[in-house]
Amino acid sequence: MGHENKKIMGSLVPVSVRGVYIAETAGGAFAPVVLLEDENSRIVPIFVGLSEAMSIHNALSGEVTPRPMTHDLFISIMESLNARITKALIDDLDEGVFYARITIGFNSVEHEIDARPSDCVALALRSKASIHMREEVISGSCVDKSDLENLMNIEAYL
Amino acid sequence: MGHENKKIMGSLVPVSVRGVYIAETAGGAFAPVVLLEDENSRIVPIFVGLSEAMSIHNALSGEVTPRPMTHDLFISIMESLNARITKALIDDLDEGVFYARITIGFNSVEHEIDARPSDCVALALRSKASIHMREEVISGSCVDKSDLENLMNIEAYL
Repeated sequence: MGHENKKIMGSLVPVSVRGVYIAETAGGAFAPVVLLEDENSRIVPIFVGLSEAMSIHNALSGEVTPRPMTHDLFISIMESLNARITKALIDDLDEGVFYARITIGFNSVEHEIDARPSDCVALALRSKASIHMREEVISGSCVDKSDLENLMNIEAYL
Repeated sequence: MGHENKKIMGSLVPVSVRGVYIAETAGGAFAPVVLLEDENSRIVPIFVGLSEAMSIHNALSGEVTPRPMTHDLFISIMESLNARITKALIDDLDEGVFYARITIGFNSVEHEIDARPSDCVALALRSKASIHMREEVISGSCVDKSDLENLMNIEAYL
C-alpha cells in the first residue's frame, strides 16, 4: 500500500447531522438511527439508543426540556469549569460498532476521550463543535439513498 | 413557625440507593423507579427514565458495559480535568417532580449545578459521592413498605 493511499484512508472528513429517524431493522424491530452526511452527500447511518436519539433530536430542533437532560447537564458542568467540547471524531468501525472520541479544550490543553458516537454527536451539537469521520469509516459504511426511503420521523414515533 | 421547626425542615439527611426496580403505574404502564433509603429506613421512590435506570443499575452492580455509557463518559471527562463530583442533593419536590443539584469540586472550589435526581444518583454512585435529601422532601414522599410489594427486578424486565 503506497503512502498516498494511506494518506487518503487516514483523512478526516467533516460531517453534519442530517437528522434522527426510526428505522425498521432486518428483524422487524424499530430502532433509532442518526444520519451523518459529508460534503459529497454520502450518508452514514448510525444506530443509537432511544434516549441518545431524543437528546440529538432536541439539540437539532432547539427544543428545551423542562428539566436538564443528561447531555444538557454535561454542558452546564463543562461551562462551570470553563472547559469546552471542541470536536468529535468518529474514527473506527469494527464488527458493526462505531468508535469515537470527544475532545475537551481546557486551559489551552486538549483532552481526547473515548466515547460512543451518540454521545459525541449529542454533545458536539450543543457545543457547536465540529464532527469529523475518518474517510475509511465513511466509505465502509455509507448507504444508498434508496436504503433511506423507509425511515420514519422520530417525532411521529414518540 | 418556630426556629427549631424550620431547622428540622431544612436539615439534610443522607440517603443510600437501595436499588432500581420496575413499578406498575396507576395507568397500568411500567416505569423504572429508583428507591432511596435514609438511616431510619424510610424509602423514597423516584421515577426515572429507562436509560438512567440502567445506568444506576450498572453502577450499583459494578457492571461494566463494552462501550462507555453517557455517565461513564461524564466521569472520564471529570477525571481528565481533575474535577470531581463531591455530592448530590435532592432538595425539592414540586407537583410530583423532584429537583436536585450536583456539586463539582475543582481547584478547591465547589460548583453546584441544577440536575435531575436520576443523573445525580448515577453520577454520585460512580464517584462514591454522598447523596442527601432535604428532610421536608423525604417526609413528603416516603412510602409504606406495602407500596413496594409489587416492584419487579429491573433485570427480569430487560
